[in-house]
Amino acid sequence: MNPSIIREILKVTEKPGILSMAGGLPSADTFPVEALKTACDRVLSLNAKESLQYAASEGFAPLREWVAARMARLGLEVSPDQVLITSGSQQGLDLVGKIMCDVGAPVAVETPTYLGALQAFTPYEPIFTSLASDHEGPLPEAFARLAHDAPGTRFAYLLPNYQNPTGRVMSLERRQAVMAAAKAANVPVVEDNPYGDLWFDEEPPASLSSMWPEGSIYLGSFSKVLTPGFRLGYIVAPKALYPKLLQAKQAADLHTPGFNQRVVYEVIKDGFLDQHIPSIRARYKANRDAMAAALKQYLPAGCEWQSPKGGMFFWIRLPEGLDAMALLPKAVDANIAYVPGAAFYASNPDPRALRLSFVTLTPDLITEGVAILGRVLGEALEAGAQPTP
Amino acid sequence: MNPSIIREILKVTEKPGILSMAGGLPSADTFPVEALKTACDRVLSLNAKESLQYAASEGFAPLREWVAARMARLGLEVSPDQVLITSGSQQGLDLVGKIMCDVGAPVAVETPTYLGALQAFTPYEPIFTSLASDHEGPLPEAFARLAHDAPGTRFAYLLPNYQNPTGRVMSLERRQAVMAAAKAANVPVVEDNPYGDLWFDEEPPASLSSMWPEGSIYLGSFSKVLTPGFRLGYIVAPKALYPKLLQAKQAADLHTPGFNQRVVYEVIKDGFLDQHIPSIRARYKANRDAMAAALKQYLPAGCEWQSPKGGMFFWIRLPEGLDAMALLPKAVDANIAYVPGAAFYASNPDPRALRLSFVTLTPDLITEGVAILGRVLGEALEAGAQPTP
Repeated sequence: MNPSIIREILKVTEKPGILSMAGGLPSADTFPVEALKTACDRVLSLNAKESLQYAASEGFAPLREWVAARMARLGLEVSPDQVLITSGSQQGLDLVGKIMCDVGAPVAVETPTYLGALQAFTPYEPIFTSLASDHEGPLPEAFARLAHDAPGTRFAYLLPNYQNPTGRVMSLERRQAVMAAAKAANVPVVEDNPYGDLWFDEEPPASLSSMWPEGSIYLGSFSKVLTPGFRLGYIVAPKALYPKLLQAKQAADLHTPGFNQRVVYEVIKDGFLDQHIPSIRARYKANRDAMAAALKQYLPAGCEWQSPKGGMFFWIRLPEGLDAMALLPKAVDANIAYVPGAAFYASNPDPRALRLSFVTLTPDLITEGVAILGRVLGEALEAGAQPTP
Repeated sequence: MNPSIIREILKVTEKPGILSMAGGLPSADTFPVEALKTACDRVLSLNAKESLQYAASEGFAPLREWVAARMARLGLEVSPDQVLITSGSQQGLDLVGKIMCDVGAPVAVETPTYLGALQAFTPYEPIFTSLASDHEGPLPEAFARLAHDAPGTRFAYLLPNYQNPTGRVMSLERRQAVMAAAKAANVPVVEDNPYGDLWFDEEPPASLSSMWPEGSIYLGSFSKVLTPGFRLGYIVAPKALYPKLLQAKQAADLHTPGFNQRVVYEVIKDGFLDQHIPSIRARYKANRDAMAAALKQYLPAGCEWQSPKGGMFFWIRLPEGLDAMALLPKAVDANIAYVPGAAFYASNPDPRALRLSFVTLTPDLITEGVAILGRVLGEALEAGAQPTP
């Protein structure tokens, strides 16, 4: 789907007072304002000149060391030399696209997948090939088929934890099977993990990258655990690939703001996230519970969904004959918004899918919003389901 | 020249206590630390949630309005809708490359030109074609030749004010002739203006873009007048081109940090730059004078240079037989550094050129550094000039 169409969709939902479950935004109530304020003041008092001058394209060395140490928790032993600080993980996607895509060469993605990745890769003109997927993510056998269906696939782009848009998580067994299949097919894996810290009851299994380190690129982000407004993410790459990524980074914007890197490092260096992230988890889990209960209570029979074990999204499949895109104007008229699922497919979009965020509204408003959604869907069903185009 | 070779060159010059005239960095003494500290505190006190959340890809609306108003001073009437905030003007170059370059299609550049632009465009695989240039910049007749020598040239990349690396400035007459020639040849112009505010005795003439607005893209930056560590720049584009740039920006990093945009706007909104920039000019002019005097005193006969009327750089041409790249290790041994001019050519590098920055050292150290350079050059001449490769 054309990205500008998505922009139009989201603009439609920008209505004063609307109960929007459309955005991919974290809750602004989780931003650690006081800690950031103290850190800004400290950095400008102690290291003003260094933080305001041009800086290394690789990123701020202590932050790179912090990231490398953090990766060990995900089962991945890396050196700080393998860490590249990026301007959000969206830039990580752009740099990966720049050095790994070739015009007309295949890139494998999940079905469905993160829209922003499709947008980031598209300018490099790959051919997207969709990996057959189920409720746990891509199927291992889909990798074996790549050699035949999409020879020369440059990489597979995977989101193992609470995927955007489906909320699904890959089990340990699925991860092992997928990575063995990717390795056998010699298709590198780009692992995008913005939501891995946002688990509710149990930590997700080990990272994909830990299962094939020399064939994997890992993308991380501070957007969901601290703030997106500082635009800070990172790439962890095999040593052989690092110089090309670094060169692309330098060409793209010289470096990520040194001030932002130092402020975030100042906030997190003494273990702040170990207290902060659990508070986000508790908040999001309560919201998830509210949405799960409301969906059960208000959605008409025939709607299908899984309750996500982490992250920010429910993925709803509507009954036969309903079209999430066609219904959006009615939903906005009724004062709610969602994102039609069709936006998240590289090909063959599912018109019956839609994505709901449960993190930007309070539990009470989630209940109210889902009740309205149930009414809109119920009325559409009563009016006679239209054949989907 | 390969960008990684440049990185190696600059690494060679990273020696404790070295008198480096190599960097392209502004003087850290010009960074308005207290104003930034106050602004950070104010933004996080008054607009924390908005500044820390995801934000519009176009940029912060009041900052876009400020830029549009500022452009009127350069003779360019634009609407805020034509302003795109970027992560430094290096990102502006990358986005321009992304939407305007085609594999194998020509891009015209000055002789010599800014290295970072060559790095930004290179991933999009253009063919660089060098515009014949003199001490005022590119020659108008070079544009007429493009139709024959480089048909289908996508754009010409020009730096009219105190160009990096030569320090040269285009006169009003040259600007008018160049823009008339570009328009006649139907070759759009990308005008890069990081140094325009850093004039010493008289303001530079009107912007190139003002002479052909619908055929020009203008790149501006806060790096040289405020701080490079916030990575803030902007593109001003014709309305017809804006949507493509915006889409590329969104794919590249979603948006430039909203926090940084709001902090900089907070600093500049009430006229701060009108006091601040003159203090930078006065400092840099004193440095320029110190370097001009030292060059006259210490450089051996046969060296040639122009005294720049603004900006940050002297461009020196060495006597026949000397090679700036070959001499660099000797210079570093003697405790000074410069950038060999060969780095700045898309083709046919001039081995006799070198670039000196006059803004990072104090006038005393500039004198000391240039005296050492004079000695190194003198010794090389005495040792018998080597034929340049």
